[in-house]
Amino acid sequence: MDMHDLTGALQQENDSKIVMLVADGLGGLPQEPGGRTELETAFTPNLDELAARGVCGGSIPVKPGISPGSGPGHLGLFGYDPLKYVIGRGALEATGIGFELQGNDVAVRCNFCTLDAEGNISDRRAGRIPSEQSVPLAVRLRDVAVEGVELFVEPVKEHRFVVVFRGEGLGGNVADTDPQRTGVPPLAPQANDSASQRTADVAAEFSRQAVQLLADQPAANGLTMRGFAPKPALPTYQEVYGLRAAAVAVYPMYKGLARLVGMDVIGEAQTLEQQVQVLREHWQRYDFFFLHFKYTDSTGEDGDFDAKVKETARFDTAIPDIMALKPDVTIVTGDHSTPAMWKAHSWHPVPTLLVADYCRTDACQSFGETECNRGGLGQFEAKYLMPLALANAGRLTKYGA
Amino acid sequence: MDMHDLTGALQQENDSKIVMLVADGLGGLPQEPGGRTELETAFTPNLDELAARGVCGGSIPVKPGISPGSGPGHLGLFGYDPLKYVIGRGALEATGIGFELQGNDVAVRCNFCTLDAEGNISDRRAGRIPSEQSVPLAVRLRDVAVEGVELFVEPVKEHRFVVVFRGEGLGGNVADTDPQRTGVPPLAPQANDSASQRTADVAAEFSRQAVQLLADQPAANGLTMRGFAPKPALPTYQEVYGLRAAAVAVYPMYKGLARLVGMDVIGEAQTLEQQVQVLREHWQRYDFFFLHFKYTDSTGEDGDFDAKVKETARFDTAIPDIMALKPDVTIVTGDHSTPAMWKAHSWHPVPTLLVADYCRTDACQSFGETECNRGGLGQFEAKYLMPLALANAGRLTKYGA
Repeated sequence: MDMHDLTGALQQENDSKIVMLVADGLGGLPQEPGGRTELETAFTPNLDELAARGVCGGSIPVKPGISPGSGPGHLGLFGYDPLKYVIGRGALEATGIGFELQGNDVAVRCNFCTLDAEGNISDRRAGRIPSEQSVPLAVRLRDVAVEGVELFVEPVKEHRFVVVFRGEGLGGNVADTDPQRTGVPPLAPQANDSASQRTADVAAEFSRQAVQLLADQPAANGLTMRGFAPKPALPTYQEVYGLRAAAVAVYPMYKGLARLVGMDVIGEAQTLEQQVQVLREHWQRYDFFFLHFKYTDSTGEDGDFDAKVKETARFDTAIPDIMALKPDVTIVTGDHSTPAMWKAHSWHPVPTLLVADYCRTDACQSFGETECNRGGLGQFEAKYLMPLALANAGRLTKYGA
Repeated sequence: MDMHDLTGALQQENDSKIVMLVADGLGGLPQEPGGRTELETAFTPNLDELAARGVCGGSIPVKPGISPGSGPGHLGLFGYDPLKYVIGRGALEATGIGFELQGNDVAVRCNFCTLDAEGNISDRRAGRIPSEQSVPLAVRLRDVAVEGVELFVEPVKEHRFVVVFRGEGLGGNVADTDPQRTGVPPLAPQANDSASQRTADVAAEFSRQAVQLLADQPAANGLTMRGFAPKPALPTYQEVYGLRAAAVAVYPMYKGLARLVGMDVIGEAQTLEQQVQVLREHWQRYDFFFLHFKYTDSTGEDGDFDAKVKETARFDTAIPDIMALKPDVTIVTGDHSTPAMWKAHSWHPVPTLLVADYCRTDACQSFGETECNRGGLGQFEAKYLMPLALANAGRLTKYGA
């Protein structure tokens, strides 16, 4: 029995509201040993007040020591075991550019490459061709037609684009065609199981026509295909939690991840203020809201400690307007840590707080990594956050008599 | 390999004594934010002394956010994964009234109901008939006879009673006969697998005769059957831990749960003082003692904060006499929290302490929820408490060379 079997069996409806505020990459590191992290440096009176009123702890995104990408990071927060549910690379790339995958799609990450006169790869990334040049080429590939299959070609950036094959009987288990070295031609698409043979055939035909269409392009006259993947089969929030769930995000990746678990993506917000406004406007229509804030991660990736401090403080300013809606359960967390000193996603537990009437508060008086170490939630795997939210919302009955 | 494979393989005998003191529903919540819980309010000098001397932590009964019933709550404490081992509803009800299930039993929860002239249910609970009236009716049903099967009919209270079928070839997988609404007759017992067909046939014949015997009862002239369940197949304490184990409990449910894992139920204690006396009298004959104290749960369920405080303090007074027996390992915990403010079993971690010569003590100076947050046991799933007890008792050898 896994957690979704439990929450599925024990769920009960009421009119409570749950808000999950995700500051991407929230956790950090001090600039020198014994110093303060970005979150501990930032002026966050509103988050501190929530920490004092609620219960705190450290969220382990996947398992100790594992630094997650955005996909597994968010799946964990959404309560989907990130080791059980895997979003294939192609599907994640399509999701990240806002492509809405359907159940009979196979998505593929493609690279433009340079082929020499013999058809061997001379540059696996087509000289990292700038987007201004590559986007029109990707669009040109929309002229490819393969019988019985709908094709979608979407630019990403530089040498990268996505192809989606839509049709019946397309398995997702096809090997990469990138040989990972130069001086040899791209590999022919090989199906790893019989259910994927047709996909391999479609991919081969797509490639053949694409090379014809690119013949006049000296820099980008070929392509390789990687990460063939179907839409991941994820049960929905409605099924596993009984929640009508909505996502308020600015970036396509997070909208897409939310859609994959059955959330409605609401509003067209471009700023944090607009996100809060969207939350307010849709307050009556949903039980659960996921609000995503990107800039704590991007500044961390840039290695810009001061900028991350500033974005953290900016995130804090949105709290009063959100709390004015009187959610029954409020969670503030991140999908992983992105310490500016590390300049990348990391494995460190993410500072997390939960506020609800019956949350059993702890000794934490402010919101930060060190303070969370003595929190009443202890350290826990992110996938347990949703069951805790449901319990605090009174949405789970007793297990067993 | 699960924990029982480990403890089974690593167990070694010695003459140590382990005592597990379970204050049912021990964990609580403060009456106002930032206040003290029941346990933190109660005068518990003896528990505080144990907490200072031992190691503390928070026991998660099942998984974060999951509120257990008594069955899974105790299975966890006994070291049996409550998601792997499930006690069916009928078996738990029989256990709760002190019926000792055998290996070829199927237990069923039954309700008296009211049938109209057409045989349709007009009241699913027979007007919640008082026990004084329903007990003689249950006893009357002992006149039912079905060939090849031994029958036991046991009153519970009001409209509820238990039937146990004992015999060869009785599977437990039969659907409920309660249609969950009025205006229709009870459903015929349906076997969900071929091994349970005979059980369904026996149940149908039992029902038929029962309705004849109840024909002169206007309020309770029918019955429905729910939660068909065999005796759960649980390995014994002797098998998985090598322990001769005894239970000292007042209420039938906890005696029954202890019996299911192979403990001897000792004594006839009706009070806490008598329980300690029973412990003392049997001290030489067993390696492990489970002592159950009910009133921290019942007062919590009643929502009576002050009464729970009082019962917690009363529980504390038993500690010196227990410690005078010089157990090698002493554990104090609960099967779940029952905060008076929540009036029900909850998901909150349960304050837990363990005292033993080599327990590695921590900074905790008193026994309470907040103090346990900084305890050396951290937060842990209840099922790990028995391995910790065995280790501290010197009853587990090294794993691997």
